[in-house]
Parts: sequence; structure tokens; C-alpha cells
Amino acid sequence: MSESAKGKTEKQAIEQIRLHSEQLNAAVLGAALMNGDVTALAQSITMLESTNTVHQEIASAIVQNCLPQSGNSLRLGITGVPGVGKSTFIDAFGMHLIAEGRKVAVLAIDPTSPISKGSILGDKTRMDQLAADAQAFIRPSPAAETLGGVARKTRETIILCEAAGFDIIIVETVGVGQSEIAVHRMTDFFLLLMLAGAGDQLQGIKRGIMEMCDAMLITKADGENIKSANFARAEYTSSLHLFPAKESGWIAPVITTSAIEKKGLKETWELISKHEQWMKERNLFHAHRQFQDVQWMHDTIKDALITDFYSSDENMSRIESVESDLKEGKITAFEAAKIVLGKR
Amino acid sequence: MSESAKGKTEKQAIEQIRLHSEQLNAAVLGAALMNGDVTALAQSITMLESTNTVHQEIASAIVQNCLPQSGNSLRLGITGVPGVGKSTFIDAFGMHLIAEGRKVAVLAIDPTSPISKGSILGDKTRMDQLAADAQAFIRPSPAAETLGGVARKTRETIILCEAAGFDIIIVETVGVGQSEIAVHRMTDFFLLLMLAGAGDQLQGIKRGIMEMCDAMLITKADGENIKSANFARAEYTSSLHLFPAKESGWIAPVITTSAIEKKGLKETWELISKHEQWMKERNLFHAHRQFQDVQWMHDTIKDALITDFYSSDENMSRIESVESDLKEGKITAFEAAKIVLGKR
Repeated sequence: MSESAKGKTEKQAIEQIRLHSEQLNAAVLGAALMNGDVTALAQSITMLESTNTVHQEIASAIVQNCLPQSGNSLRLGITGVPGVGKSTFIDAFGMHLIAEGRKVAVLAIDPTSPISKGSILGDKTRMDQLAADAQAFIRPSPAAETLGGVARKTRETIILCEAAGFDIIIVETVGVGQSEIAVHRMTDFFLLLMLAGAGDQLQGIKRGIMEMCDAMLITKADGENIKSANFARAEYTSSLHLFPAKESGWIAPVITTSAIEKKGLKETWELISKHEQWMKERNLFHAHRQFQDVQWMHDTIKDALITDFYSSDENMSRIESVESDLKEGKITAFEAAKIVLGKR
Repeated sequence: MSESAKGKTEKQAIEQIRLHSEQLNAAVLGAALMNGDVTALAQSITMLESTNTVHQEIASAIVQNCLPQSGNSLRLGITGVPGVGKSTFIDAFGMHLIAEGRKVAVLAIDPTSPISKGSILGDKTRMDQLAADAQAFIRPSPAAETLGGVARKTRETIILCEAAGFDIIIVETVGVGQSEIAVHRMTDFFLLLMLAGAGDQLQGIKRGIMEMCDAMLITKADGENIKSANFARAEYTSSLHLFPAKESGWIAPVITTSAIEKKGLKETWELISKHEQWMKERNLFHAHRQFQDVQWMHDTIKDALITDFYSSDENMSRIESVESDLKEGKITAFEAAKIVLGKR
């Protein structure tokens, strides 16, 4: 056997071992995860978020294995501007759900996290009680270049959490804008938290986000705030009635809550349950998820088209060859794209 | 000649006439636009935003024709939460620039506008003076399904405005998050507007957005607000110094402004000019635009990959054929995507 042939066989053998150990890794991690092992869950999510292709392959295999065990949770989206008390509310509400025998996972979507690096990590410590409870799992926003990337990873993380036995998945979103749309697209119930007295405008809550919500909570309704919270409740109740009715006929109620006094937590859960029943009676609960699945399919297709294109050596060398002309101003970005795509 | 052959020739003739009239349309509109005709500019942007493919083709041809005449403006990104006084500032600042002999275009990026429909249209009327001035052009955010779509159209609108002779392009962004990143990617100077006394947290301004800005303006520094505005200025000046230095060595200054008292407008422009000079002296001004051009090329490639895939009848019928299985829960979104992509 020639030296080069020997080298090739060795390489093949190593590749086979690598593949085998990958599959083994995915199987072991996946099995532990589906057995409720939170460390395995956390490790799997880390692989999902890794840019290492081997990790990604393992993560993808784990997600595939988990799919049949997923879908049995209630997925809850929670939004509101910074300062509204999201973490405090989720901490108190999560503990209420755990006391009722549930397991709660809290995930975050924060499209700005790739720049602000770690700003949201502080949220984990702000959920003191949940962070210390074995029935809870808290995971900050995955770092990704685009909101689409963050959303895809969060959606896959939901699958993993469900397979690990969490039956309430809370997806928290920070800020105002596109990320709310992304969360709305992956949850069953969308909850908007509002401060009394701060005014809609300063809170930066867009009409479009109010339109999406299935319920609105006025936070910090305690002490001196009670009067203004009740006033805000009446005001928002009438303004929510002005929006065009949802297809389901559900009209978003407004309630006041206090995380400190544990007020409104039971009522919030009752609302969510009532909504679930409402949707199920009208055969809309699963229809809604099916619609989300179709959107997810399209997102997956789009992701794959881009990933496949950029993983081709031929395309990458084409890009490299136009980049200098583009940088020197000889061609425009449009023309460069056309050349790379073989359109001219 | 048979009837069917006759029909075919007629169809071809009609198609030829259509193509010809399209090219004519693009040529006429483009020429008028490059001659500074604002109606032609507005019509071209409307075509750019249209979902009608004929309009899109005309718009694309106009953008191509305009490219050699573009790039000569200063592109200015302006952000800040609702209530900070963006429209009022832009109105006053724009009039200041016009008084100095410049032509000002104001574009808006608002990723939530597809849902809230028209909420931003109110901004145009809030810029009273600019809206009435022949040297100004105001255009609200294009409606698009994704932020990527909004960004692409805004980028092309910049080209058109530049070709029409506008030498200051202001891209305004509403809210907090991804849209700021999009605006940062298409402008030369990024301005953050802040209210004194409202606190960072309630204003929802992320560390990451503060990191991106080239200057910060404290708005409404008049009357009783002067003291707190000066305090905020000192506070933000020191906090901006704590951020890692920009590659260019430029440290974002903080100044106080009042749109009512027309205070700080001249200083703002001096700052922007100083920054331009700073960047040009270090050969970074065009390097920055080149970098943006490369990003733009990649965005164009990604857009085209998706558009091409979805405009194929074969792919669309594949999607149709998996959708029912997906909706009935027989396959997952992942599996459906794989089938559509021909990967299984």
C-alpha cells in the first residue's frame, strides 16, 4: 500500500470514528435530556448556539430526536419595555406555576444582544427564586447575527425544553419592534406588560404590539400605584376594545398585578387557561400551531438556501474575486451580487 | 397563418410593446428624477415599494441608471425612543441645513410599520416646516414583511434621493433594536437623541446602541429642563468614555439641543462635519462605505436566493404538496423543508 493511500485510509477511518462519536454524543445527550436531565438540556442548547459545525450537527440530530416528544407545553410570549418589571413578574408568576406542580422554562429573545453582549445575562440573576428552583430552567437570548438566527435557535430550544419535560415555556422579549413579531410567531399566548401612568408613548409600545396581545397586565399595582393602575386598567380595556376583533373572537382582557404582593398571578394563569380552552373549543389552538409550523418551514427553507450557497467553495471564491472590484468602486454592490449569482 | 400561430405572434407583439414601454417609462422617470424632479422621485420610490413585478422591474432599472449619480451625499442616521422629539429635532435641523443651501431628504425605517399601518405617516405632518419646503423631501418607512425588506428598499431610496440632488440624507429609525443596526449599516454618521432625566432604562436605550453612536444629543434643553439637560450631558459624556474606543479613535461627544430655541443645531452640524473630516483624514470614510457595500452585496445575494427559489413553479408546487402533510402533523417543519429542498 502506498504512503498516500495509507494516509487516505487513515483519514477515512478517523472521519468514521468522528462521525460515530458524534452520533453517540447526540444519542447520549438526547437520551439524558429526554430523561429530564437539565445539564444535558443546557449542553444541547449550547451546541445549538455553537458556530462549530460538528456541534451544530450534533444539536441538529438531538432536535430531530426530540421532535416526537415536543409540542406538549403551553408556549407563552411575554413582552414590555425595560423597566416594566418583566423579570420580577416572571419570577413571581413562574413560582406560582411551580407551586401548582408545573415545570417552567424561561427563554429570552433579544435581537440586540450580539452587540450589547451579556446585558441580558443580568436577567437570570434578577429572577432570584426561579434561578434557584429545580423545576425551573432559565436561558438567556442566544447570540446570533440576525433576529432570524435568534428566532430559529429559540424555536429549537423550545423543542428541547419540551422534550426535557417543561410544560410551560415562557419566551421573554426585550424592547420594541420586530422581536415581538418573532415571539408571537412561536407562542400560543402573548402577554403584554404595561406600567400605569408612564404613558404609551414613553413606553414605546406600538399599536401593532397592542393589537397582537392576548392579555395585558398592568404591573406594580401596589402601594401608592393602585389608583393609577386601576385607572390604566379601565383606560386600556376600552382602547383594546377599539382594535379590530381577532379571528377567534377573543378580546384581550386587562388585569392589574403586583409581583411583590403576589397579586394577579392566579388570575393571569386563569386567563391563559381560559384562552387555551376558548381556542381549543373553536379548533383554533392546533390550527394556530399548524400555521406557525408552515411559517417555520419557510424560515427553515430560507435559512438553508443561504447556508447552502455560502458553504460552496465555488461561490465563496466567486465572492472573493468580486470583492476587490467592489471595494475599489469599479462595480456596485448590485453588479457584484449579479456576478456572484452568475446572472451576468 | 393558423389562428393559434396568429395568436402567438400577437402575444409576442404585445409583450414587446410592454417591454418597450417599460424601458421608456424607466428612462423618462429616471431622467426627470436625475433632473431633480421630486414628483418623479416620489413615483420611482412608489414603484420600488410596489409588489407589482412590472413596477419592480422599472424601479430596478431606474436604480441602476441612478447609481453613477449617487454616493455624493452625507448619510445621517438618527435614532431615539418615541417621545424624545425626533421629528421636532429633524424639522428644526433640516431647516438649518436648508438655510445653509443644502437639500435634505428624510427617510424612515420602522420595522413595525407593516402591522401598525400608517402610525409613522403622522411623522410627516409633525415636520411642518420641512414638509412645506421645496428643498426637503420626506418619505415614511416602506411597508415590507421583514426588516431586511425595509432596509433594502430604504437603501435603494437613498440612491434615488442622491441622484435627485439631495445632499443630506437623514434616515430616521423608530424604536429600539434591530432597526438601529440596519440604519447604522447604511449611514456615515449615527446620532442618538436622548431625553434628560427620563433615565436610560425607561428610554429603552441599549448599551449596544449607545456604543454605535457617533454623537449624542440631549433634546428639549430649554426652560426648566436646562439644568437636568446639562447634568445628563456630563453624565453621558463620562459614560460614553467608558465604552471601548472606536477603530477610528473618534469619541462620541454629547451636546444639548433645543428645537424650540434652535439651540445646538449649528453645533450638531459642526460635529458631523468634523467627524467627516476626521474619517477622511484617516482614509476611513470611504473604507466604511466600502465595508457597507460588501454587506449590501451579501444582502442582495441572500434576497435573490430566496426570491429566485420562490419564483420557481416547481418549488412552489413542491411546497404545496408538503403543506397538507405538515398541517396534519404527519411531518415536522424540518422534514417538510428538507423535502422541498430535495434533501430527502
